[in-house]
Amino acid sequence: MRKENRLIRWIWWIVIVTALFFLGFIIGWFAKPTHPNTENHKASSKYLKEFLDEMQTEKIREHLRKFTRLPHLAGTEQNLKYAEQIMNEWQEFGLDSVEMVPYDVLLSYPNKSQPNYISIVDHLGNEVFNTSLAEPVPQGYEDVPNIVPPYSAFSAKGQPEGDLVYVNYGRTEDFFQLERQMGINVTGKIVIVRYGKIFRGNKVKNAILAGAKGIIMFSDPADYWAAGVQPYPDGWNLPSGGAQRGNVLNLNGAGDPLTPGYPAKEYTYRFSMEDGVGLPKIPVHPIGFHDAIHLLKNMGGEIPPNNWKGALNVSYRIGPGFTDDFKSQKVRMNIYTNNQVTRIYNVIGRIRGALEPDRYVILGGHRDAWVFGGIDPMSGAAVVHETVRSAGRLLSKGWRPRRTIIFASWDAEEFGLQGSTEWAEDNAKVLQERAVAYINADSAIEGMYTLRVDCTPSLHTLVYDLTKQIASPEEGEDGVSLYESWHKRDNWTNDRDAPRISKLGSGSDFEAYFIRLGIAAGRARYTKNKKTERYSSYPVYHSVYETFEIVEKFYDPSFRRLRAVAQVRGGLIFRLADSQLLPLDVNQYADSLRKYAQSIAQLAQKNPEEMEMYAVSFDSLFSAVENFTVAAMDFHERLQTLNTADPLQVRIMNDQLMYLERAFIDPLGLPGRPFYRHVIFAPSSHNKYAGESFPGIYDALFDIENAADPVKAWEEVKRQISIAAFTVHAAAMTLTPPA
Amino acid sequence: MRKENRLIRWIWWIVIVTALFFLGFIIGWFAKPTHPNTENHKASSKYLKEFLDEMQTEKIREHLRKFTRLPHLAGTEQNLKYAEQIMNEWQEFGLDSVEMVPYDVLLSYPNKSQPNYISIVDHLGNEVFNTSLAEPVPQGYEDVPNIVPPYSAFSAKGQPEGDLVYVNYGRTEDFFQLERQMGINVTGKIVIVRYGKIFRGNKVKNAILAGAKGIIMFSDPADYWAAGVQPYPDGWNLPSGGAQRGNVLNLNGAGDPLTPGYPAKEYTYRFSMEDGVGLPKIPVHPIGFHDAIHLLKNMGGEIPPNNWKGALNVSYRIGPGFTDDFKSQKVRMNIYTNNQVTRIYNVIGRIRGALEPDRYVILGGHRDAWVFGGIDPMSGAAVVHETVRSAGRLLSKGWRPRRTIIFASWDAEEFGLQGSTEWAEDNAKVLQERAVAYINADSAIEGMYTLRVDCTPSLHTLVYDLTKQIASPEEGEDGVSLYESWHKRDNWTNDRDAPRISKLGSGSDFEAYFIRLGIAAGRARYTKNKKTERYSSYPVYHSVYETFEIVEKFYDPSFRRLRAVAQVRGGLIFRLADSQLLPLDVNQYADSLRKYAQSIAQLAQKNPEEMEMYAVSFDSLFSAVENFTVAAMDFHERLQTLNTADPLQVRIMNDQLMYLERAFIDPLGLPGRPFYRHVIFAPSSHNKYAGESFPGIYDALFDIENAADPVKAWEEVKRQISIAAFTVHAAAMTLTPPA
Repeated sequence: MRKENRLIRWIWWIVIVTALFFLGFIIGWFAKPTHPNTENHKASSKYLKEFLDEMQTEKIREHLRKFTRLPHLAGTEQNLKYAEQIMNEWQEFGLDSVEMVPYDVLLSYPNKSQPNYISIVDHLGNEVFNTSLAEPVPQGYEDVPNIVPPYSAFSAKGQPEGDLVYVNYGRTEDFFQLERQMGINVTGKIVIVRYGKIFRGNKVKNAILAGAKGIIMFSDPADYWAAGVQPYPDGWNLPSGGAQRGNVLNLNGAGDPLTPGYPAKEYTYRFSMEDGVGLPKIPVHPIGFHDAIHLLKNMGGEIPPNNWKGALNVSYRIGPGFTDDFKSQKVRMNIYTNNQVTRIYNVIGRIRGALEPDRYVILGGHRDAWVFGGIDPMSGAAVVHETVRSAGRLLSKGWRPRRTIIFASWDAEEFGLQGSTEWAEDNAKVLQERAVAYINADSAIEGMYTLRVDCTPSLHTLVYDLTKQIASPEEGEDGVSLYESWHKRDNWTNDRDAPRISKLGSGSDFEAYFIRLGIAAGRARYTKNKKTERYSSYPVYHSVYETFEIVEKFYDPSFRRLRAVAQVRGGLIFRLADSQLLPLDVNQYADSLRKYAQSIAQLAQKNPEEMEMYAVSFDSLFSAVENFTVAAMDFHERLQTLNTADPLQVRIMNDQLMYLERAFIDPLGLPGRPFYRHVIFAPSSHNKYAGESFPGIYDALFDIENAADPVKAWEEVKRQISIAAFTVHAAAMTLTPPA
Repeated sequence: MRKENRLIRWIWWIVIVTALFFLGFIIGWFAKPTHPNTENHKASSKYLKEFLDEMQTEKIREHLRKFTRLPHLAGTEQNLKYAEQIMNEWQEFGLDSVEMVPYDVLLSYPNKSQPNYISIVDHLGNEVFNTSLAEPVPQGYEDVPNIVPPYSAFSAKGQPEGDLVYVNYGRTEDFFQLERQMGINVTGKIVIVRYGKIFRGNKVKNAILAGAKGIIMFSDPADYWAAGVQPYPDGWNLPSGGAQRGNVLNLNGAGDPLTPGYPAKEYTYRFSMEDGVGLPKIPVHPIGFHDAIHLLKNMGGEIPPNNWKGALNVSYRIGPGFTDDFKSQKVRMNIYTNNQVTRIYNVIGRIRGALEPDRYVILGGHRDAWVFGGIDPMSGAAVVHETVRSAGRLLSKGWRPRRTIIFASWDAEEFGLQGSTEWAEDNAKVLQERAVAYINADSAIEGMYTLRVDCTPSLHTLVYDLTKQIASPEEGEDGVSLYESWHKRDNWTNDRDAPRISKLGSGSDFEAYFIRLGIAAGRARYTKNKKTERYSSYPVYHSVYETFEIVEKFYDPSFRRLRAVAQVRGGLIFRLADSQLLPLDVNQYADSLRKYAQSIAQLAQKNPEEMEMYAVSFDSLFSAVENFTVAAMDFHERLQTLNTADPLQVRIMNDQLMYLERAFIDPLGLPGRPFYRHVIFAPSSHNKYAGESFPGIYDALFDIENAADPVKAWEEVKRQISIAAFTVHAAAMTLTPPA
């Protein structure tokens, strides 16, 4: 019995030992996560809060103060110095790597020994009036060297002389009205137009197409004065002697005019100046309204309709030329501006992604300024700087994002988005495979009213989520979220109760990333009240009066608005870089596509007879949108049941999310614009600033009532509808299960 | 004491139990693989062997027999029937899904009621000689309906009449010689050229550029007769009445001529016939040498150099026109061929990938044939069919590849690669993100000598590895591998002791995948001895004599050569789809780039003075290649230390491998050829069949000695070198660590 007992006890022992071992084994087996990163999500949320909380108004103020003391035009020594300073500070903040990336691009500067100006000359050729050679310098900056006078970068050189014709804003429709209704031909004339409504380069293009031999642009108080506001320095309106600098290229996304499609490196082939992209063939010059009065006051010709009249005390007669008493006087432009291949510098900083280093989230904005850049761009650059500092702090606490974050300080944005475009060209092959999103950081503030966001539809949901986690910067809104503050001030439309988000146009550095490469993109800034403040951009835009003080005194004395913008921009890149599942909402894209399709079809329906006659139908596009909508809903449903513990399954669906934007790219480009390749969003050919949906169809329909060859014109509409329908179908296909 | 003892025992117990539990836990923790697929590799090798062994000569014979009984021209009912049969059988074989994908493309057929022919007419307009309306039908096929007579698809209609000019092969250099050395202008003439050396569409383009109003192409025995071989059916030479059908388009990769860039669906916009891509504006017709003799024998004009002379018993005088006695006779072409939008059908079958369903490996080949397609393409289609059958068997045994495999039976290849190109256009957005490789399956045999492989350099190593695992099909080579058998017969060059692998040109369905989309691609077939057999393709190419019997009796009586080709093609897709790490060798690409750079620089060095004068340098290209070489070596070194248990790390490096080929794509395309976008490989503009390396530079250098504007011509060379250097640099960048 004793032996038996022992045996039984031994058996018991073995059974228990084995059972315990297996219990342990099984628990160990299942306790081990399939992938070490399941806990990441909670940690990520905690870090997001820390990241946003770390951003400080006082620091943003310091950054802005530091980088606006001296003029830092692209290609100048000072702009290189700021680049070096930013590089060093980003390194100190703790980025994994920071590098300076140079390109040699075509820039344009006034001739220092022969200033640009415009004269009125009498019949003897005497200059009886000359426009001013510079803006009156604001107090405290009198001794600052290297303030470039107002000029139109890339203007042709020349001294054209002739009669003036006033063409309102110089828009396509203004020239049409001038030619068709007023019967005036500007061939051989000098046109004068007011700034505003559209990109100045489009005004220049229209003037050239119309045959003008020169074009003068002026800032009219109707467009650059806010009601009840004093001119700078007593308020933030444009002084009468202030003028808007700016490039007058028609690049359509080409970047450096001499190296379209390729980065402007040492070995890169450069076209001759004659073959360069978008360089105007006529002289162009900007003036303030103090000078404009002199050119306008004696003009003859018809009195135009009221919507052609600005706020100056002149009649805004169209011309050509001056009235009877001054008929013998002509206008002469004296333009000596030089184009010059010049070295520019981007600063590129990186935080290496922990798990997916080959997925890039980019926050980029420019550093070069026309003068001090108090608003444009340093209010944005200061925000980026603070974002980098805050990210560095997080890194030092042990955080590392799932994906790689890239910070960029672009150069030569003001000369046609050149720094950002050359870098996009340089890295195109890597970016097209790896870039998740691009967030733009130009001027962080252009008004004092509320938030403004322009972004791709798939970012809408993220923007709303995030702004609910950020505090309103407005006085008296303690405890109110940025979302609520924004929503209250700018509700979308009647059909949607949410803050308005707009389409991306162009005119800033996201262009190559979004419109050429098809990378999901967005931008955020503080803005004016569009309903009551009807002036273009902001009054002192691109003038010497864009100082640190204008921000500190008027736009954001507490620097809380800039901090809110920093939190939005920074929060976007944080969430995009650190979420296990990409926070992109495909259903929002479907909704937007439906709206856009309806709206473009409505536009075409302005010509119901032609639609009928030429058998033009939008059915294929509507059907494609329907298809996309179903695919998007199915996709988000599948996301619900995704096994997030399986890293490959997560990656596969993230890839579908990332590449959706890419699917809207047509490698053939829009007609005549090989670098505008996004079929859903691009500027129209008539205004670079405004983002149009279905721009191919939009352009084909533009002024189709007056087409020289209506058959051909409507054929082109049909072709564009077909391309749009195909693209939407193809994009839908990318969302279906991959096999 | 007893209590103490009990306590101690209890403590012991707890300690042991805890220890055991933890031991189990720890072992369980570490025993669990980070990813369930570590064992995959060994299983994969075993399955590869089974996959190759399953392929049977008798089955291939059956497939070939089955699909060559009736003519099955693209767009005909019979070709749809074969498509349905293939779809059904692929389903039976066990693919996960099989679908029929239609497109409506422009095809071209002879007018059934008005046959095409060429006449000699006397001065009264009487037809004194007419070419034959059809080829003599081979025995056994006399009652077969729907044999299309020899014609040039997409020929313009017309009845041009005029003097003949003989222009050898109709190559660019032949026309140059004719015009420059022989001083003959073909404006308003009808040119007659022999088939061979270059793609027939290039001959037609050259004739049009030279001003000819018609072009006749004939098969000269010098180019379509093998020595000591009887004409079919007694041997495999071309009978005198046989003629080569074929399309005469200059599509440059556009696919359907009416829908370039987009899939030819119901809703797709179609260009008018006048605006279609690549359609010749003059009549074109092919004849056999039996007829050619009659056109050539009385020709007047100079006797040409010997290399213009074929093997007919005529003098090959150049013309223009006939000799004295026959001077009043003219040649008239009577061409009534119609272009017609026609429905075509691709069959697409899939095996869903187990782990990476969003990675695609494609095996595609065409099904449409000019007549029976005994060689072209059914020898290839039979091989694909057997590959699908074998893959189906493996699936039934529990195998499932890591990645998705797609099998394609393309339609309308003979009309300009239309089925494959339209599907590529339809799926471009998905393919550019997901396609790992494309293996082409056109004719599996064109000779009886050895293997021929054309592929992208990164596939070289895989091809060598794989052919070492396949048996030689040759008699008396038991135990010899295909690699050895091939190596013995076709060693690469002096500088490398390995079987020769060539560059991909065009002329088959890989074009859109490789040259437009940048997907790694390759093709394999059995071929002739290039050193001794100098005829073009194979003698009966595109004639009615391409029957099942010609393969069974002459080309591959044992069907072992076709099986070997099946094993190569199938083995390639197996390894690409099932290897954990993609079997792509980036170092091989580096080696090839170096050779190509040297070779194109040598070509330029034929003009050393101009190189000097215009400061043309290849340094930037060599430096880029150097850079690429280092990046490639580093990449393979990193591969050695890759943690293959981490699925994300594996995916990241596989993505780099997959996207390398994509990096060679220039979205702007080659000059004037928007759908040829591969900077390293494309056909030259002078011969679609031949793959050139650095085709942009090659074309820029072509005939540069005689450039009308040498400054401009050398500028273009410099621009192309710059593009090549940039592309190689950019490709190198994709191989560096991603962050």
